[in-house]
Amino acid sequence: MRLLVALGGNAIKQAHEKGTTVEQFLNCEKIMKLLAQIVKMMKPEDRLVITHGNGPQAGNLMVQQEAGKDIVPPQDLDVVGAMTQGQIAYMLQQTLDNYLRELGTNIPVVGVVNRVRVRRDDPEFIGENASKPVGNFLTKAEAMQLKKKHPEYILKKVKPTGKKCWRRVVPSPDPIDNVEDEAIRKMVDAGIIVIASGGGGVPVVLDEDGHYRGIDAVIDKDLAGERLAEVVGVDVFLILTDVEKVRLNFGKPDEKEIDRMTLPEAKRYLEEGHFLAGSMGPKVKACIRFLEWGGKRAVITSLDKAIDALEGKTGTEIVKG
Amino acid sequence: MRLLVALGGNAIKQAHEKGTTVEQFLNCEKIMKLLAQIVKMMKPEDRLVITHGNGPQAGNLMVQQEAGKDIVPPQDLDVVGAMTQGQIAYMLQQTLDNYLRELGTNIPVVGVVNRVRVRRDDPEFIGENASKPVGNFLTKAEAMQLKKKHPEYILKKVKPTGKKCWRRVVPSPDPIDNVEDEAIRKMVDAGIIVIASGGGGVPVVLDEDGHYRGIDAVIDKDLAGERLAEVVGVDVFLILTDVEKVRLNFGKPDEKEIDRMTLPEAKRYLEEGHFLAGSMGPKVKACIRFLEWGGKRAVITSLDKAIDALEGKTGTEIVKG
Repeated sequence: MRLLVALGGNAIKQAHEKGTTVEQFLNCEKIMKLLAQIVKMMKPEDRLVITHGNGPQAGNLMVQQEAGKDIVPPQDLDVVGAMTQGQIAYMLQQTLDNYLRELGTNIPVVGVVNRVRVRRDDPEFIGENASKPVGNFLTKAEAMQLKKKHPEYILKKVKPTGKKCWRRVVPSPDPIDNVEDEAIRKMVDAGIIVIASGGGGVPVVLDEDGHYRGIDAVIDKDLAGERLAEVVGVDVFLILTDVEKVRLNFGKPDEKEIDRMTLPEAKRYLEEGHFLAGSMGPKVKACIRFLEWGGKRAVITSLDKAIDALEGKTGTEIVKG
Repeated sequence: MRLLVALGGNAIKQAHEKGTTVEQFLNCEKIMKLLAQIVKMMKPEDRLVITHGNGPQAGNLMVQQEAGKDIVPPQDLDVVGAMTQGQIAYMLQQTLDNYLRELGTNIPVVGVVNRVRVRRDDPEFIGENASKPVGNFLTKAEAMQLKKKHPEYILKKVKPTGKKCWRRVVPSPDPIDNVEDEAIRKMVDAGIIVIASGGGGVPVVLDEDGHYRGIDAVIDKDLAGERLAEVVGVDVFLILTDVEKVRLNFGKPDEKEIDRMTLPEAKRYLEEGHFLAGSMGPKVKACIRFLEWGGKRAVITSLDKAIDALEGKTGTEIVKG
């Protein structure tokens, strides 16, 4: 059994936190104490692969870069992504390794710097299509000021009401494939617990001269995680988020938790607009792709219910038919 | 033949540059065009491992963190190290992979997030022993101001003359071992070109409870590289720096280039103080350790002479006896 666990960047820096090193390590400890227990239950031939978001970490880094920009040049978004891969993988591998050894398990854990290929002609790169909000919420005046300083930025009103309802948005292109596929496959086959595709992977395009080049974008981490699942032949795709179960009619009076969906049901619900874009939408879409590719079982649940959900006791399970 | 190449962080962001993403990628392209040629000359059973410094990149990131500190908390030095591992490994693996495929070679390249263990009782952590300068040069007034804001910082006068001759210094403890040793060994054995121990590795200590924890320090990248060489059984340790050959009586009228040193000669010269601490000193020390451990050949030269030096035509070669 090969298991891929996808963690949200918010699980590592929670919304109410500033994001100090101490806070983030404490969150990683909570997560990894739990994942270590899952590893402990696995058979020697089983494999665990981990992926994670980076929204809050990349947001913080972008604030720092903007603050220091008169002295030091801010790095492009692809480099920011790679920096947060280093940051988050370090905290995850350190804490998982600590708890694994505490349980007497000496499986090596390592994070890799990992690129994901997108298409330069993805609709998200056209005009004002970009859809992924990054950085702080801004007032209209702040947004206009930022646009003046960075004419290349796309600023959008992302909330209908409130004073600070503007944000910068960047393209969120569809992930095509994982560039380090062969290396990651070899590592997983060799028995290493690999942390990969962090923050949706460093976004790159393959140019006509055969060279990969970074591009200013942020790939959805669950959709990129699904590509990673294909690379390593994952059986079970576990997406950990902040709710125990996916809901139908989200935000409406007849809202209802889903215990189990078949692939055709999941596709129908997604089409009918039951799931929020930029939130549950891409998670369900990633699960659909995973099952269509050949995965056996996808599960969406909250961190504290991870073990119960893997055992089929809770969470939302999505299966082929 | 297993080859370890150690690159300086200054080769990736040169002293006269600001350190934009474009500048750093151009430097990486120059380096990797050359390393790709070396890989092309290798036999299928040969292996390449790469390590690199991170001084300028960590320095820039620390400036950004300080500039944004009223909004976003700066990360600790271990996390800063991990962030620059992600940043630099991304640029190196992208450019090396591009040139390898251009030469028709499909060897996978990947950077790992990598910790190096140090001792909490290393003399560098005691009192004002810390010796590794980080961040910008400061005037005495600026240094005193920084000390007021961060009473835990150690500020030292690092140049005898000039207006800006103060810098923050941090402990530079001796690397004991590479924590991800097993994972890296498996990867190299599987035929992957691994980028590891970046910036001297993320410094961690192993506490009495059996948990690794990060510590505020910067490990010398060549000394840490030597530990990496032991892990993967390297035969040839190639240190690329900004001079073609090591010199005796450095900075004196009778300064003289060294073509070849035996291990006893290198030890004697080091003891006699021929090499600058924090510069050529740790490089020669790393070569000495490498040969004492069982390595066959260490070479110190400049980037543009790398191929000639590997072929024995230039550079300073250090061998057992």
